[in-house]
Amino acid sequence: MPLVAQPLFVIPLPLPLVRPGDDLGALVASALGGIELAAQDVVVVAQKIVSKAEGRYVRLSDVQCTEEARALAARLDRDPAMVTLVLQESAHVVRAEPQALIVQHRLGYVMANAGIDQSNLDPMAEDGPAVLLLPEDPDASAARLQERLGTLLGMRLPVIVSDSFGRPWRRGSVGVALGVSGLPAVLDLRGAADLFGRALQITIAGFADQIASLACLLMGEGAEGIPAVLVQGLSWSAPAGTGADLLRPVQEDLFR
Amino acid sequence: MPLVAQPLFVIPLPLPLVRPGDDLGALVASALGGIELAAQDVVVVAQKIVSKAEGRYVRLSDVQCTEEARALAARLDRDPAMVTLVLQESAHVVRAEPQALIVQHRLGYVMANAGIDQSNLDPMAEDGPAVLLLPEDPDASAARLQERLGTLLGMRLPVIVSDSFGRPWRRGSVGVALGVSGLPAVLDLRGAADLFGRALQITIAGFADQIASLACLLMGEGAEGIPAVLVQGLSWSAPAGTGADLLRPVQEDLFR
Repeated sequence: MPLVAQPLFVIPLPLPLVRPGDDLGALVASALGGIELAAQDVVVVAQKIVSKAEGRYVRLSDVQCTEEARALAARLDRDPAMVTLVLQESAHVVRAEPQALIVQHRLGYVMANAGIDQSNLDPMAEDGPAVLLLPEDPDASAARLQERLGTLLGMRLPVIVSDSFGRPWRRGSVGVALGVSGLPAVLDLRGAADLFGRALQITIAGFADQIASLACLLMGEGAEGIPAVLVQGLSWSAPAGTGADLLRPVQEDLFR
Repeated sequence: MPLVAQPLFVIPLPLPLVRPGDDLGALVASALGGIELAAQDVVVVAQKIVSKAEGRYVRLSDVQCTEEARALAARLDRDPAMVTLVLQESAHVVRAEPQALIVQHRLGYVMANAGIDQSNLDPMAEDGPAVLLLPEDPDASAARLQERLGTLLGMRLPVIVSDSFGRPWRRGSVGVALGVSGLPAVLDLRGAADLFGRALQITIAGFADQIASLACLLMGEGAEGIPAVLVQGLSWSAPAGTGADLLRPVQEDLFR
């Protein structure tokens, strides 16, 4: 399974501010206008705009706080409504400290605050401050966007729904693929021969996560944030996978 | 600290097979011939070719095995000479299982086998099989390569010495920056305002690791491996850092 060895071209796709109910596929297709596309050009969209289009806002004043969340919020000096939402979105808590609340999200991701976003949300919204949950099912979001692009462009471009995670051992957040459709999420290199025909030591590459990290370099986080990116020049022959392929089963996780 | 929002262009740099004592800067400079360069174009070189140029080979038949390594090798069903080298290169063992020997390298990286490479090494070498250690000091290697490129090209292009690591929680190896010279390793986003002027939740980006992941997409691992990559289109205003900036101090590591 050779990876690519031709140049990559990575194009930022500026979009208007995305609102609930927006046709994200139409916005992305419009941003792709004028670009000559190939079948393995990958569209990477930030989780945040997918959640916005899907209307995954929750007003903090609407949250019914649980006792468990109130106790944890008091210990961490955090908002009880926010902690309630984090716990509702999580399978279990990995670490709870004043500096960080790390959980395993119900979909398996290990991340801070269950991915609930308090930034870049309009604080002047008339019904009080809201936060933004992850998409209900990022793999399904990616598949829907791929289908929609197929309808609008005549090309079912592969799609990654990306986010940015902190991680163990190393400082700095890096891009990760939450949802994947139309491309492999991991590449199994176990069949590949090395230069002298022996088996390779590193056997599985986090293909979609590396593409998400690449996209994150363009997306940034601040006011200049670019919410979508097109990556041209990748190629693969492995079958398509899903973001779930990137979740390491606990029983094979030797890195902790 | 805005990240970039212009297109990126990522160019593979094929090199001849690198041998001990080779002038890696001259090989890279030659591969860059004909490319119009800018001051913030980043050269990413795979750790393996840096180690080869630095002659970091060890013949397994030359290793004096320790008792500790013999015992561990027996338990893991591994070669005692290889385990001896892994332990010599490590500060401590994180996990020792038949499937994986995860250590903290003496330079701080948490990785399998202390980064010692048994693949892509010529098994027909006359003195028996050899393995390849990490560079003695990847930050120093990056700085030397940056200096050498400055001498040869008149431009001190920023340099990353990259590797590919497995990681906790998620499947698939991804690129990491071992050595960094001439660019920031992490970008502190804490001063950046979001779209509505509030503080950002994710505050430190693993800038050089994300560039290494990008490069890994081109480098691959197999016979088609490309050992060096040029990344054009990035920009930054933060001061340069080192690969050591990416090592998370244990006391602030909440993700394990």
